[in-house]
Amino acid sequence: MSGNGFGHLFRFTTFGESHGPAIGCVIDGVPPGIPLAEADIQHYLDQRKPGQNRFTTQRREPDQVKILSGVFEGLTTGTSIGLLIENTDQRSKDYGEIKDTFRPGHADWVYQQKYGIRDYRGGGRSSARETAMRVAAGAIARKVLDALVPGGVSIRGAMVGMGPHSIDRAAWNWAEVGNNPFWCPDAIAAKAWEESLDAIRKAGSSIGGVVEVVAERVPVGLGAPVYDKLDADLAKAMMSINAVKGVEIGDGFAAATLSGEENADEMRMGNDGQVRFLSNHAGGILGGISTGQEVVVRLAVKPTSSILTPKRSIDAKGNEVEVSTKGRHDPCVAIRAVPVAEAMMACTLADHLLRSLAQPRP
Amino acid sequence: MSGNGFGHLFRFTTFGESHGPAIGCVIDGVPPGIPLAEADIQHYLDQRKPGQNRFTTQRREPDQVKILSGVFEGLTTGTSIGLLIENTDQRSKDYGEIKDTFRPGHADWVYQQKYGIRDYRGGGRSSARETAMRVAAGAIARKVLDALVPGGVSIRGAMVGMGPHSIDRAAWNWAEVGNNPFWCPDAIAAKAWEESLDAIRKAGSSIGGVVEVVAERVPVGLGAPVYDKLDADLAKAMMSINAVKGVEIGDGFAAATLSGEENADEMRMGNDGQVRFLSNHAGGILGGISTGQEVVVRLAVKPTSSILTPKRSIDAKGNEVEVSTKGRHDPCVAIRAVPVAEAMMACTLADHLLRSLAQPRP
Amino acid sequence: MSGNGFGHLFRFTTFGESHGPAIGCVIDGVPPGIPLAEADIQHYLDQRKPGQNRFTTQRREPDQVKILSGVFEGLTTGTSIGLLIENTDQRSKDYGEIKDTFRPGHADWVYQQKYGIRDYRGGGRSSARETAMRVAAGAIARKVLDALVPGGVSIRGAMVGMGPHSIDRAAWNWAEVGNNPFWCPDAIAAKAWEESLDAIRKAGSSIGGVVEVVAERVPVGLGAPVYDKLDADLAKAMMSINAVKGVEIGDGFAAATLSGEENADEMRMGNDGQVRFLSNHAGGILGGISTGQEVVVRLAVKPTSSILTPKRSIDAKGNEVEVSTKGRHDPCVAIRAVPVAEAMMACTLADHLLRSLAQPRP
Amino acid sequence: MSGNGFGHLFRFTTFGESHGPAIGCVIDGVPPGIPLAEADIQHYLDQRKPGQNRFTTQRREPDQVKILSGVFEGLTTGTSIGLLIENTDQRSKDYGEIKDTFRPGHADWVYQQKYGIRDYRGGGRSSARETAMRVAAGAIARKVLDALVPGGVSIRGAMVGMGPHSIDRAAWNWAEVGNNPFWCPDAIAAKAWEESLDAIRKAGSSIGGVVEVVAERVPVGLGAPVYDKLDADLAKAMMSINAVKGVEIGDGFAAATLSGEENADEMRMGNDGQVRFLSNHAGGILGGISTGQEVVVRLAVKPTSSILTPKRSIDAKGNEVEVSTKGRHDPCVAIRAVPVAEAMMACTLADHLLRSLAQPRP
Repeated sequence: MSGNGFGHLFRFTTFGESHGPAIGCVIDGVPPGIPLAEADIQHYLDQRKPGQNRFTTQRREPDQVKILSGVFEGLTTGTSIGLLIENTDQRSKDYGEIKDTFRPGHADWVYQQKYGIRDYRGGGRSSARETAMRVAAGAIARKVLDALVPGGVSIRGAMVGMGPHSIDRAAWNWAEVGNNPFWCPDAIAAKAWEESLDAIRKAGSSIGGVVEVVAERVPVGLGAPVYDKLDADLAKAMMSINAVKGVEIGDGFAAATLSGEENADEMRMGNDGQVRFLSNHAGGILGGISTGQEVVVRLAVKPTSSILTPKRSIDAKGNEVEVSTKGRHDPCVAIRAVPVAEAMMACTLADHLLRSLAQPRP
Repeated sequence: MSGNGFGHLFRFTTFGESHGPAIGCVIDGVPPGIPLAEADIQHYLDQRKPGQNRFTTQRREPDQVKILSGVFEGLTTGTSIGLLIENTDQRSKDYGEIKDTFRPGHADWVYQQKYGIRDYRGGGRSSARETAMRVAAGAIARKVLDALVPGGVSIRGAMVGMGPHSIDRAAWNWAEVGNNPFWCPDAIAAKAWEESLDAIRKAGSSIGGVVEVVAERVPVGLGAPVYDKLDADLAKAMMSINAVKGVEIGDGFAAATLSGEENADEMRMGNDGQVRFLSNHAGGILGGISTGQEVVVRLAVKPTSSILTPKRSIDAKGNEVEVSTKGRHDPCVAIRAVPVAEAMMACTLADHLLRSLAQPRP
Repeated sequence: MSGNGFGHLFRFTTFGESHGPAIGCVIDGVPPGIPLAEADIQHYLDQRKPGQNRFTTQRREPDQVKILSGVFEGLTTGTSIGLLIENTDQRSKDYGEIKDTFRPGHADWVYQQKYGIRDYRGGGRSSARETAMRVAAGAIARKVLDALVPGGVSIRGAMVGMGPHSIDRAAWNWAEVGNNPFWCPDAIAAKAWEESLDAIRKAGSSIGGVVEVVAERVPVGLGAPVYDKLDADLAKAMMSINAVKGVEIGDGFAAATLSGEENADEMRMGNDGQVRFLSNHAGGILGGISTGQEVVVRLAVKPTSSILTPKRSIDAKGNEVEVSTKGRHDPCVAIRAVPVAEAMMACTLADHLLRSLAQPRP
Repeated sequence: MSGNGFGHLFRFTTFGESHGPAIGCVIDGVPPGIPLAEADIQHYLDQRKPGQNRFTTQRREPDQVKILSGVFEGLTTGTSIGLLIENTDQRSKDYGEIKDTFRPGHADWVYQQKYGIRDYRGGGRSSARETAMRVAAGAIARKVLDALVPGGVSIRGAMVGMGPHSIDRAAWNWAEVGNNPFWCPDAIAAKAWEESLDAIRKAGSSIGGVVEVVAERVPVGLGAPVYDKLDADLAKAMMSINAVKGVEIGDGFAAATLSGEENADEMRMGNDGQVRFLSNHAGGILGGISTGQEVVVRLAVKPTSSILTPKRSIDAKGNEVEVSTKGRHDPCVAIRAVPVAEAMMACTLADHLLRSLAQPRP
């Protein structure tokens, strides 16, 4: 109820601050008998972890996950799974400035207002450090989906826009996503972005971006009318990620500009006797329920406010000050949002898959 | 868990189908001692009800609400509030076509796939008829907010885009919202939209739209990190409304194109000793917590698929058919989404207000 | 969160006061395709309804239930089911006394303290009138259990003690339960109780009782460790019934007096290759999980405080007064607790059955 | 939903098996600004930990708790609190027998049936080892109660019955509770129990017991009608503790034998202008809501099935076997249930205290 957990039947609850001794989570509801090893989780954590290239924060965290419970002889047991990652790179530094000054665009001031106290070191609980646990939970969600859905569910994310630049969707190639620091599916765009972001980074500035996540082989029928529609829960999942300011399903805001004729996803029968949709404006969700098509979600990520240019703010005593961020930071936080958004997709789908099992057709 | 309720501490659960005998809801968690009468709810229901002008469906429903419990001598008692609206305009007509044919773009097919059965009359549970109960719950949420927040909370909605047309934001005038059939705050745009929508209506076509909801005097500190951020819950609330395909907070997707310098909301001290933000790119929410500024949410509403132009679909036996919708329908469902979106804003804020009370600073 | 609902996956939420216009509930999570008619529910409501014999309150309520949603052409649709019972016997009488005086042993005073307001007519929300909706929900839970468990689940209740009198368990005969006004399985005891309770009734006094509920053919494996053990949820379910002061599973408090040797339920293999327990001290639940044996729950029901003998109390102004109850009341409220306890057993089992489906073995 | 958490607004979720690397929990909903140190928790853990005298298992666990998050500079921050206890005494021994044999009266067989897999080492997740985390959460719940309730809330437990022996309630002396190995408030009874239990222990037998928990200075008005009555939630809390088979509030089962005249708790006005109850048959709860009197709960704890006498059981292959437990075990597990029951009382009260704050009287 205080917001540290996500999901209902596949539910995880996280704890930990940026510069505390450790972060962790408990995952409840995982079915028994699913193969799970630390390496399964580590694989995805390694995609998110900081310090991998010059476009992500230079904090050095191995993000080594430990499974503390719920797995026995390589299989889940149906009981709660405890995960732990120790923080190692808590630089001993002077927090004097951040302690007493509210960084504009960060959660410093609102946490102080809400709670009257905050762990100011590195942003404390509001730090994106917490997203490591989302990625860990997402890794387990993928295992659940793969165990229960024949053929498994594929979940992939990509960055499709950086500041004013967007990709050429015709050039989309999933294979390119791992070949550049942006998870960009368009090799040519990625090249251009690299130059652009280098300039931004050197100027101590930052830029926003757009992330797209696509899930394939999602079973028909996931999503619970009326308030827990699959798209409603995906919107919540994505909007809960740090710095996200917008979420779209399928055509999203573009659909608002279309006519009914343009927006229709017509249906035909395939040769295999299965229904086939002729287009996917809906992004794989109708009436809040998955159609079996690709589920497509996009999220807008704002630029971080941690920039070199001084910005006007106040301090804890109500003095007017100017704040400027030097040192390590992410020039485009959208990049690291990609594996996190994938993880939130996986967790949302796993939760709804389990929910659908609880309302069987007799 | 099966999705028919919304909220946690201010929680409502709805029931009812488009053409059943009645729709209703239970609202749990309303504090005691708040003045509440049926007229308080009816006021908002009258804004949503169909048949008010030529741009909304011609179904005639008085939508007369009855309070069945939880109110005594004009005051809430702290116990659950039951609400009921009887359906009166259930035209006796032949449902043969809709019974066996899946309308493209509607929830018909996915409900049938998910449940193996559906109440096909008028869309059944997936009909926008259900949103009457959201509006009723929203009316009570407003009473809660007004009782607990000094000065009350103002929640207003407007349509800011219709198909390719948008408003001139410089011309925004809340007083105009009640003067046109679109809840449009720009009188000149409304005039143009009227012509445009008349043509669409006569052609049996439809068009999408964008709705914006603004809440003023929201207390600082609403929103629960990390997963129940205020914006995350608003995203879910809005995305759960029929036909919504996108949600933005503040600058939303535009923020993804900005630099950190452009996106910063700087802070100064006002003469009153209160913090003042110099801009509101964030839409009143930082780190998932309200800043005290206006909370600004926008939602993209797709065009309804109920159009005259025949579209390819299938029937219950797997035959390929064409579907065309004649008769009463809304050419732009975004219009009627305005009071519903306001209601969902009210419910989300009321829920988080109660949640904030449960974590007091001692 | 404000306590008007029960269950998670099979969840019902009720509303209504003793003397309001109606009581009702919404049931969420019922699987689709289950046959359900109003008569299925009415059957159980008729067992609970007041005025059936001289030992239950003479209030006359037909308790006619209406299904308002969630059922189509005789089958559940998987969407929320709305139920309504109109109150008909709201005697217009002078509530002056009960309005200003707190009846000892009733919830009058605590409601007033908690909420600062209460619907004092007939006990308002704290009245046992609310239990009609438990019985209605229980009837639907039985349908769910019967649809999903091969052979169906049998749930039967009986009164096994009245004041100082208890039954001869060796004489237990389920067939007798319908033959006396007490749901007593021991015909000889029932005879004696009749005389005893007649005297109590005539004296305007009251007496407590013990109810036992037995569920047969409960599948092995229901119950979720650690906090949602089946017995923990049953304890909550039963203790939430008006006037209940104690709950036991299996041997219950007697188990505290036993040695490990006496309390052991040994296991053997049956000729059918199934495990057979040689005794059932555990009441069908081990480690919070059903064993497949009979699930046995007992509840202690206190005597109602509505008695003729004046009892010392206070009024709303803090004056010391004496309160005496004349007129219609139940001399032994445990009698009417029997169908309610059965219903709560059914709802708890249905909820856990659906929960077990959500954690499948792959 | 899978049962590893307790509470709603004060909510904790636990993980960990008896012989895994660690046990832990996350506590969500703790208000900010409350002083909290590891020593506050350790104090109560030390009361529960095994190996303290000859009547509790000789497993040696320091049960050293670490706070991993949610506390900053000695105060809670309002964010989730992570706790961890490493398991140190996981004797390397041959689990061959317990691996393949189901101990009668334990959860072995039902876990295997439910999940198809179990961590059999030391009982795995079903082990009472998990209760250490209840005690830790309870320690924090006490801090919450003390911070928010003027004068603080006192919660004390005692053992009031062991097998056939019970205490002389007239001799009740809280000061004695710490002077004997039983938390027994009657010094003379404790002496007799010691002899009795020594014999039982030497015989490799076991015995049940009754625990009573009393909370003082509980504010009036805690408890949420209708389904989340304070007594209903206490019943669930207590019944969720390992080996508990019965729960009573106030007079409990004895109330079922009383008349209305005997059971009435009359009210008078005290000289201080406060309402005074003349008795407390109700155990401090009316209509599910606290009256301000002592809240009194009793629980029946069964004897452990781990005894020397061979008992008939089956093994994993369906062979009939005999099982006998040698070595360390608790002859009366009720003893160690005392601090656990206190903790569950504290958590339940803290949860309802926060819930009451969320429904303020305006």
